[in-house]
Amino acid sequence: MKKLINDPRAVASEYLAGFAAAHRDLVRVNVDPAYVVRTDSPRRGKVAVVSGGGSGHEPLHAGFVGAGMLDAAVPGPVFTSPTPDPVLAATTAVDGGAGVLYIVKNYTGDVLNFETAAELAGIDGIDVRTVVVGDDVAVRDSLFTAGRRGVAGTVIVEKIAGAAAQRGDDIDRVVALSERVIAGVRSMGVAIAPPTVPPAGEQSFVLTDDEVEFGIGIHGEPGRERAAFEPVDRLVDRVLGAILEDAPRVAGDRVLLLVNGMGATPSAELYIAFRRAAAVLAEAGVEVTRSLVGSFVTSLDMQGFSLTVASMDDELIQLWDAPVVTAALRWGR
Amino acid sequence: MKKLINDPRAVASEYLAGFAAAHRDLVRVNVDPAYVVRTDSPRRGKVAVVSGGGSGHEPLHAGFVGAGMLDAAVPGPVFTSPTPDPVLAATTAVDGGAGVLYIVKNYTGDVLNFETAAELAGIDGIDVRTVVVGDDVAVRDSLFTAGRRGVAGTVIVEKIAGAAAQRGDDIDRVVALSERVIAGVRSMGVAIAPPTVPPAGEQSFVLTDDEVEFGIGIHGEPGRERAAFEPVDRLVDRVLGAILEDAPRVAGDRVLLLVNGMGATPSAELYIAFRRAAAVLAEAGVEVTRSLVGSFVTSLDMQGFSLTVASMDDELIQLWDAPVVTAALRWGR
Repeated sequence: MKKLINDPRAVASEYLAGFAAAHRDLVRVNVDPAYVVRTDSPRRGKVAVVSGGGSGHEPLHAGFVGAGMLDAAVPGPVFTSPTPDPVLAATTAVDGGAGVLYIVKNYTGDVLNFETAAELAGIDGIDVRTVVVGDDVAVRDSLFTAGRRGVAGTVIVEKIAGAAAQRGDDIDRVVALSERVIAGVRSMGVAIAPPTVPPAGEQSFVLTDDEVEFGIGIHGEPGRERAAFEPVDRLVDRVLGAILEDAPRVAGDRVLLLVNGMGATPSAELYIAFRRAAAVLAEAGVEVTRSLVGSFVTSLDMQGFSLTVASMDDELIQLWDAPVVTAALRWGR
Repeated sequence: MKKLINDPRAVASEYLAGFAAAHRDLVRVNVDPAYVVRTDSPRRGKVAVVSGGGSGHEPLHAGFVGAGMLDAAVPGPVFTSPTPDPVLAATTAVDGGAGVLYIVKNYTGDVLNFETAAELAGIDGIDVRTVVVGDDVAVRDSLFTAGRRGVAGTVIVEKIAGAAAQRGDDIDRVVALSERVIAGVRSMGVAIAPPTVPPAGEQSFVLTDDEVEFGIGIHGEPGRERAAFEPVDRLVDRVLGAILEDAPRVAGDRVLLLVNGMGATPSAELYIAFRRAAAVLAEAGVEVTRSLVGSFVTSLDMQGFSLTVASMDDELIQLWDAPVVTAALRWGR
């Protein structure tokens, strides 16, 4: 297994150590149990926003901890949910007395572990609410889920919820805004090469030089269809087609368009894909009011991209544009 | 050739089209000749900072156009210098009457073409100055250069020069600050897999599963040594060792440490490398006063990383910290 790592069992912890060293100004990293919080946690009177899940999807979630987005991120081992203990510890560390929102990607382990942590936090008198993101239109159920998987749309939920909490919204309002984003966001991905998962050191699926996999998840799990490799514009058309079939858009709709790299995709290729997706939406009269292009929700070194189309309105745009100061998203001040 | 592209000859232009669509708020893209400028160009009375070179290194250079960094970027075809014409056109588009600085990576074609453009601009009465970046300690000369190659350190030169121009420094001062950065910056890279270069569709060199190439350039050109694959900490030690051998640092020195991905390297792996490099410098008493981790100066889909160590002082830190609003670097406001 030729990867830029040391001990395959230490990938998550060594990543966190490097992240902590590089971003001392933004975050504090607790080693055991492992979690990442804003340096200025807890913020009294502010709703705290917490997310987490298996590692291997960097910069998700640690890269989104900071002012205007997450108060805490709880990373598990590679592709493995964190247990309730670190989730509870992170919750206690960031609770400012105004409630805590868990943003959970819809995987069975994550849902269960965050639910347990929420119950334990409740016993300690912390008002925890949970929203579950299931934006992936590729499959109805999967190896790891009942219902749809949570993928790149999670970033948009985290940004909007974080901005609402930062401006002082109460927990009911932050939950409602998060649910509004979740209701309007759809994603799907395609891979041209699988990830190699440590410590096993094996590729999670095999593609020939002529094949792509549509509807891949972010854990090397199967997609919806193996198909012939085509120029990227054709791949974009099929992915975007599936997204729009699931949630049709009409002329005048405003959306955020996210083109997300899966880990080993050069940014130039993402922009080529963005160009096509934006053109198809423009053709349909759909306004791409906000754009995001980069590798935000990855699957180790998988090669490919996902598209995310999220409904926007005046308030959501305002929250999207609000200042954010994290390692992976930063703007506005 | 399995890449997320369409026509292999249109990679640079389709990238630019996507970049323009995604970043309408930051840049204007001219199609023929191809160049990228700030939306608010020209800025009267401000020194204009211009860079460019072959495509395939994204986000360099277009990703660094915006307030506080570049006024214009001039991309050539993949791995091919832009001719003097687009450089001259970009120069004219951003000239605000206070002089124009060219930041040129040291490759024979770039040096020659920017020199010709500078002469032509001079005839038009524009005061063009040029600085040449040659931060790569890997090789003395190379296939494409007399002298050292310009690689990831270029980003630091562009940021500092851009900040100086933005605060109103005159052309002499912007040149002097750029030269100060150039004098103190050193880089070297290592690859575990080569890039595949369109339109040829061939890997530019071949590595077995047990090999790495130290001192690779950013055009698939040979490095300084083929060696056995090792855990990333050992690779970091060797790369950083070569950098420090070339420009020794002593206890109390302040540096900026950049860990740069070569295009297909997941960000988690870059942070693992950062962790080691920062620890080695700390051990030597060298203060890593500023950090940057990400894929900024790439070589298509090459897998690997480069390290850059740049001397910092109070003024350079202040300029580094100054607000920057570009697609690939953004902070401070």
